[in-house]
Amino acid sequence: MSVKRITRVAVIGTGAVGGFYGAKLHKAGIEVHFLARSDAQVIKEEGLRITSLVDEDIYLETVNVHATSASMPKCDLVLITLKTTANSSLESILNDVADDESVICTLQNGYGLEQSLENLRPNNPIVGGLCFICSLKRAPGVIEHQDFGSIRLGDYNAGTRILDQIVTLFESSNITTQQADSLMQARWEKLVWNIPFNGLSVILDATTKEMLEDSDTRQLIKTIMLEVISVAKAKGYDLDESLADKMIQVTDDMTPYFPSMKGDFDNCRPMEIAAIYQAALTEAESMNIFMPQTQMLNQLLNFMDHG
Amino acid sequence: MSVKRITRVAVIGTGAVGGFYGAKLHKAGIEVHFLARSDAQVIKEEGLRITSLVDEDIYLETVNVHATSASMPKCDLVLITLKTTANSSLESILNDVADDESVICTLQNGYGLEQSLENLRPNNPIVGGLCFICSLKRAPGVIEHQDFGSIRLGDYNAGTRILDQIVTLFESSNITTQQADSLMQARWEKLVWNIPFNGLSVILDATTKEMLEDSDTRQLIKTIMLEVISVAKAKGYDLDESLADKMIQVTDDMTPYFPSMKGDFDNCRPMEIAAIYQAALTEAESMNIFMPQTQMLNQLLNFMDHG
Repeated sequence: MSVKRITRVAVIGTGAVGGFYGAKLHKAGIEVHFLARSDAQVIKEEGLRITSLVDEDIYLETVNVHATSASMPKCDLVLITLKTTANSSLESILNDVADDESVICTLQNGYGLEQSLENLRPNNPIVGGLCFICSLKRAPGVIEHQDFGSIRLGDYNAGTRILDQIVTLFESSNITTQQADSLMQARWEKLVWNIPFNGLSVILDATTKEMLEDSDTRQLIKTIMLEVISVAKAKGYDLDESLADKMIQVTDDMTPYFPSMKGDFDNCRPMEIAAIYQAALTEAESMNIFMPQTQMLNQLLNFMDHG
Repeated sequence: MSVKRITRVAVIGTGAVGGFYGAKLHKAGIEVHFLARSDAQVIKEEGLRITSLVDEDIYLETVNVHATSASMPKCDLVLITLKTTANSSLESILNDVADDESVICTLQNGYGLEQSLENLRPNNPIVGGLCFICSLKRAPGVIEHQDFGSIRLGDYNAGTRILDQIVTLFESSNITTQQADSLMQARWEKLVWNIPFNGLSVILDATTKEMLEDSDTRQLIKTIMLEVISVAKAKGYDLDESLADKMIQVTDDMTPYFPSMKGDFDNCRPMEIAAIYQAALTEAESMNIFMPQTQMLNQLLNFMDHG
């Protein structure tokens, strides 16, 4: 595939993730176009603000913000930072912001996202990114950055040169970026964290710290992690059981955190159950593996999501 | 063991179960002594009232009610209707109300209860009963009877003649009573219902009906039931997988119900997690069987119980 210079970036979704990384790119001098729907008017009037508990604050008085993708230009790079629950809107958004050479990069949580994008846009180069960030949207255009902030980027079908180009773009925008040898392995590794912590924080109304300080839920988190690791291994990915303890230790050292699904639930937004839980369960089922505790989390969350 | 005529009955715990069955015995002319702790004064002044949604109401203006077992006489039959979370008080209570010939009958939920009683009182005949009743304590001395009300009685070490005597006593007090061929099998059958419905109603803040009308939780309930059935079968009890669907259908036809554990949780009382969940898990563990979903329920409930 051809490698076009990236001068214009679309950020699809100006929440905790899109607002944060988009602001960094804008601050570095890139032309960034934010899709912000109902938040667009406030951001137009009041700007985009990142308040960071661990890093410098960013305040952008004037940004290119759009309430609908219809007003957005074609962009060289499209960063998808929508909730996966809104993915049904992606087809028409991509028709507006992407031409045939646009690189599409999903920074969403979950599994199977790049495959869905490939179905929608078979001719575009696609990459995926895993965001290691604790952040939340405090108000329209106001993002609180709590901890971390790096991205692990992996190639789906774009090729090394395009991936390198995006890594360079991010790094030059003050975003710590690693390359993943295998995007799918990196996604499984992220599921190892997301599957226990997201769902349990909703069900138990508890932070990462509260869950890890209780011996019952600490053990449960580990068992669920091992369930996910065993499926990833069956898929052929090189995950080790020791990853569970490592991730638990890293989370021990984190500022107590409500994962994003808890924020969605508390704000009566739909939860990303399909992309995180159902996607993993479908992979397991295709190999005749039963994930009893992940399945139970999925069922409990579906009940709560309906309600 | 000798068979003494039962003329005096102790009811240890005057809540939803003890209040209901004790009132029936009293009404039938038996001398019943109720242990009611903090409720004793109210019951002494205002009597004991059963309001039934499906049967005749009972109002007993004057009952023998005690705030402490120290004032209770020795009784021929001791019905234990305490929450299992209060079982540490049983030793001293039994010292007060039981002589060496007293029959001890536990009507509590859970597993391993008769074994514990045998350890406390190795010389007393012990029987166990499973209560199929939907009832709750609305206020001290006010029991609302919502549905059902039968008891399945099984022998632990008392022998047939004593068991027959208690069955006769109950039946003549207008309590529908069946004999279980195997008390332990009957207890496992009850666990098949109690393990999913009690815990899930707490975690999901939902009635039996709400959980069964949702396809996710309906499936989850069945899977958990099958987990319990498989352990009972491994223990050698004659439970069939079809019991899961049968119990679900019976529950479909019930008045929407919050199981007793939900009432305990909502009223900030400790939940009967040890007797219902830990007891089953311990049995499974002794046979090297992993009950992943029962284990997860146990862990989630322990977290909530601490909190």
